[in-house]
Amino acid sequence: MSGFSDNIMRLSGRMLSQYPAQRDWDGKLTRAPHPGIIPTCSIVTLSDNLPKQEIMKWNGWGYSDSKFLYNKKGQAEFTGKRYRLSGMIIPGLREWMESTFGANLQHKTPAAPILNSSAVQPPTLNEAFLKELKSTGIPFSHDAEDRVFRSHGHCLHEIFALREGKIGRVPDLVVWPNCHNDVVKIVELACKHNVCLMPYGGGTSVSSALECPPEETRSIVSLDTSQMNRILWIDEKNLTAHVEAGIVGQDLERLLNESGYCTGHEPDSMEFSSLGGWVATRASGMKKNIYGNIEDLVVHIKMVTPQGVIEKSCQGPRMSTGPDVHHFIMGSEGTLGVVTEVTMKIRPMPEYQKYGSVVFPNFEMGVACLREVARQRCAPASIRLMDNEQFKFGHALKPQVSSIFTSFLDGLKKFYITKFKGFDPNRLCVATLLFEGDREKVLQHEKQVYDIAAKFGGLAAGEDNGQRGYMLTFVIAYLRDLGMDYYVIGESFETSVPWDRVLDICRNVKARIVRECKDKGVQFPPLSTCRVTQTYDAGACVYFYFAFNYRGLSDPVHVYEQVEHAAREEILANGGSLSHHHGVGKLRKEWMRETISSVGMGMLKSVKDYVDPNNIFGNRNLL
Amino acid sequence: MSGFSDNIMRLSGRMLSQYPAQRDWDGKLTRAPHPGIIPTCSIVTLSDNLPKQEIMKWNGWGYSDSKFLYNKKGQAEFTGKRYRLSGMIIPGLREWMESTFGANLQHKTPAAPILNSSAVQPPTLNEAFLKELKSTGIPFSHDAEDRVFRSHGHCLHEIFALREGKIGRVPDLVVWPNCHNDVVKIVELACKHNVCLMPYGGGTSVSSALECPPEETRSIVSLDTSQMNRILWIDEKNLTAHVEAGIVGQDLERLLNESGYCTGHEPDSMEFSSLGGWVATRASGMKKNIYGNIEDLVVHIKMVTPQGVIEKSCQGPRMSTGPDVHHFIMGSEGTLGVVTEVTMKIRPMPEYQKYGSVVFPNFEMGVACLREVARQRCAPASIRLMDNEQFKFGHALKPQVSSIFTSFLDGLKKFYITKFKGFDPNRLCVATLLFEGDREKVLQHEKQVYDIAAKFGGLAAGEDNGQRGYMLTFVIAYLRDLGMDYYVIGESFETSVPWDRVLDICRNVKARIVRECKDKGVQFPPLSTCRVTQTYDAGACVYFYFAFNYRGLSDPVHVYEQVEHAAREEILANGGSLSHHHGVGKLRKEWMRETISSVGMGMLKSVKDYVDPNNIFGNRNLL
Repeated sequence: MSGFSDNIMRLSGRMLSQYPAQRDWDGKLTRAPHPGIIPTCSIVTLSDNLPKQEIMKWNGWGYSDSKFLYNKKGQAEFTGKRYRLSGMIIPGLREWMESTFGANLQHKTPAAPILNSSAVQPPTLNEAFLKELKSTGIPFSHDAEDRVFRSHGHCLHEIFALREGKIGRVPDLVVWPNCHNDVVKIVELACKHNVCLMPYGGGTSVSSALECPPEETRSIVSLDTSQMNRILWIDEKNLTAHVEAGIVGQDLERLLNESGYCTGHEPDSMEFSSLGGWVATRASGMKKNIYGNIEDLVVHIKMVTPQGVIEKSCQGPRMSTGPDVHHFIMGSEGTLGVVTEVTMKIRPMPEYQKYGSVVFPNFEMGVACLREVARQRCAPASIRLMDNEQFKFGHALKPQVSSIFTSFLDGLKKFYITKFKGFDPNRLCVATLLFEGDREKVLQHEKQVYDIAAKFGGLAAGEDNGQRGYMLTFVIAYLRDLGMDYYVIGESFETSVPWDRVLDICRNVKARIVRECKDKGVQFPPLSTCRVTQTYDAGACVYFYFAFNYRGLSDPVHVYEQVEHAAREEILANGGSLSHHHGVGKLRKEWMRETISSVGMGMLKSVKDYVDPNNIFGNRNLL
Repeated sequence: MSGFSDNIMRLSGRMLSQYPAQRDWDGKLTRAPHPGIIPTCSIVTLSDNLPKQEIMKWNGWGYSDSKFLYNKKGQAEFTGKRYRLSGMIIPGLREWMESTFGANLQHKTPAAPILNSSAVQPPTLNEAFLKELKSTGIPFSHDAEDRVFRSHGHCLHEIFALREGKIGRVPDLVVWPNCHNDVVKIVELACKHNVCLMPYGGGTSVSSALECPPEETRSIVSLDTSQMNRILWIDEKNLTAHVEAGIVGQDLERLLNESGYCTGHEPDSMEFSSLGGWVATRASGMKKNIYGNIEDLVVHIKMVTPQGVIEKSCQGPRMSTGPDVHHFIMGSEGTLGVVTEVTMKIRPMPEYQKYGSVVFPNFEMGVACLREVARQRCAPASIRLMDNEQFKFGHALKPQVSSIFTSFLDGLKKFYITKFKGFDPNRLCVATLLFEGDREKVLQHEKQVYDIAAKFGGLAAGEDNGQRGYMLTFVIAYLRDLGMDYYVIGESFETSVPWDRVLDICRNVKARIVRECKDKGVQFPPLSTCRVTQTYDAGACVYFYFAFNYRGLSDPVHVYEQVEHAAREEILANGGSLSHHHGVGKLRKEWMRETISSVGMGMLKSVKDYVDPNNIFGNRNLL
């Protein structure tokens, strides 16, 4: 049981509306907020006012109440009430898992159910820092649960270790600044007393960015931004919103929606990831074709660094004032400071939204179609092409909607026999589509895209399949926890690559994964699958899933890491980038020099050495 | 007469096709060029194989053979054969100039006709550098004409001084590298022997970027990129082109057009400005609504610095690999190195192009219309709104197309009486439009935009007026030289600003200019005019023209500088940026700290100190 104490506000991401609705922008704004501005108080919640760790898993993905499990009948179900899939039986999942991985419900690898606090090192507290911190009134904790919760992201090795109850280096202290000025105070104190600060947003990193460097001897303070989560104002004249960086995606969109707006930024992690995290990692969203990626969305950024606050003086839409310092901040992955406030572009909510799907005879035709859609610059809000394995996987996740049980294979057969005669079930693949905007334009646009698809042998496969594909996006991450209950481990990773290398990279990386697994003694062929998940003028984003049954291996995580490493080498050799949007963290540091050249590394280092000479922001990411 | 010598290739921007068509990308490319790639040899020319300074003015804008003058009949004409306006009489121009500025054809201020070579300081040559340079075979010159030609951009004070025959600090040597490897050699030698290198592309800077710092005691070497101007390959699969950075806009587009492609990057300076210059200054193009600004167009950049070559390893369309080092390069304004090669996105040439124009009752309605077009994200390739003064100015530039002489005022009266009853001729303003793309889509798009315009009182005013507006873009710069023949000096400057400040900034800056001129003793009210020249989601680019009659002032350039300074202060106070696309150079350095904050300055400085610790790239821009 976590130790509450009266003077610690046990906050989870909910902001009580006790603060004045309108606030000056750091006191520096000399003109009154524009009459077109709607000041808001964000009443946001990830929960019903419960601490994060009481509603989220401490050793897995997402909400505690939502998980895949096999019930007493041996059927897969998804618990809870938060998702469309919640409370439903998924009849095909077991068969799919068994056939894909050679998994067996008898072979269990359960996680440690609760955190053993005594496995957590006592905190290394910097007393001088703590003393001054107390006088600021900023909430803090050195409670084991709070520290462990903020000690990790969601890389496989991190979750695997937690499930085994293995706790490595964790933050010594957690602090919850309430606003920009609190962050300024914390950073000043950290510099004064030489503590290591690690900004913590949504905790969804998959680049080992949040791992505490084991060699760090100073006190590590996790700076949790969740309480700085207000929309400070909405500016309807300029279609911008000024937002505190601790806000999470779902709250940002929900609050803007109340005023008829949205940012449209919808990374797969949006239920939990924060605005500050997006800026720090150069995040990308599902609907970037309409709304842009984070670099297209931000108009103004404020970051607190050891040298002081960095911010531009102007909110102009585009400038030539030397190298763009926003681009020194974006992608800095917590190594330079804490992003506190961001002005983002907003758009009126779309009038109309329509999903869709297209079945292609094979992956090559699908890719050619996506390339043509990109060439004609007529991509929908989202267009994603999954390979054959993912198509099958998607079927496996169909919930039971009637009393008639349809086996996975039967359902699959039925799908292709009735609708897609002549399509080889082991080659066909599916693209999911999302259109949004003005209804008339959407329908025109839809026709244009389906016409192009037809030229590549694509057949429309209905809105349902499209919508389901997107809904699954948010539950996929929960599946890994299920796998990990039955000897199956896996990860996703991604890249961006020029168009002419897409097919090669998909084929070669998937084949390399299979080869490496075999070499390393994996007993059952792995799941090695991909999808083209974003299109650009000059290339695409490709997303890989890789998972395998580790039964019989003495060091499964090590095998996993070797295979992932080889996969990344294969990606790079095939002209793919180090990352499209996940970032570098500590996981991919070794390739940085090759990626941006020695001079590029030197530039990043020189900025780091200037901004943070004592490595206060010592998460050791990137460099 | 300039001194030729046999071993100097007197090159002007023309590349003789004696080099192999296909070249390895720096020898590092391990895969063969893709079969879809069309290798090209660029046969480009700014001239008929004559040296730049023999076809371009040494003390004014553009081509020597093209200029405005008043003929024996006192009529304005535009000489030469290069432009649509060439060889034509412009009947209204004289009247407009006389009434707008109180100018008088009797009051002449002619320029020094030729360069007085003895006014040029003898070169400070670094003999050790020169000796090693000679052994490389790279062409060079220390001829006075070559040096003076590359000693300036096109700020008013620079041209004014040249017209008076006043020559300040100029480069001591000019070198013409032929390719990336030549640049590597030059930079190595410069570092070894401590000479100051100033990259020189098209020479169109209007930020004093090309001025040689008078305090520079080392030998200054102008690195003229004009001979590195090939398109190395066109990649039709990825729709990219790999281009040497010395290519100028008109040649790049013409060459790509031959293969059915374009970049669509059309800055007003495109006849002369270079790809490397665009990268260095964060250039913007007229049709950025379709093609993007330079940061949207580049996929890969290679730059030679004192620390070595900086380049990414990958041509992926978008990445998260830390802060984007391309953005350390873009906007560095020649302070870090020489951009040598760039991969740019290309597009198929548009099928169809259509101009248009709309007359609005007043500027406010016009701005509101542009704002709504931006809000609906349906801007044409280009949409520009000029104020009433520019509308009148546009009329003054109408060539005589028939034998019937129509006075300026008559023509104006006729225009508004016949077409735009009820419009106040002293308030109405005009937007020019350019649509391009698929013909059907263009016509649909056009309808949408005119429908919006109608809601703001806008009336379609025909294709001709639109087309003429854009044609005039390329001759406007020649007008300043005419003005300067008759006591009139002036400049353009620009900013970017949020939508809600557009009207204020236009009104306040124009008024401030008028006030300042009066205060400083300018005898005749100035021309103070603006246009909204680009639209964005969150704001617009506003372009100002400012000119006045300086007769009676003892130090006209000083008065000009004071007024310009005040105008920029007014822009900043009204929420405008330091620059949308012209850049900072030396002209706007004083506001950099305020613009990007001290921490931002420190970041730029730290990069500079790392990349170029001995200030080899010593143009003193930005910092």
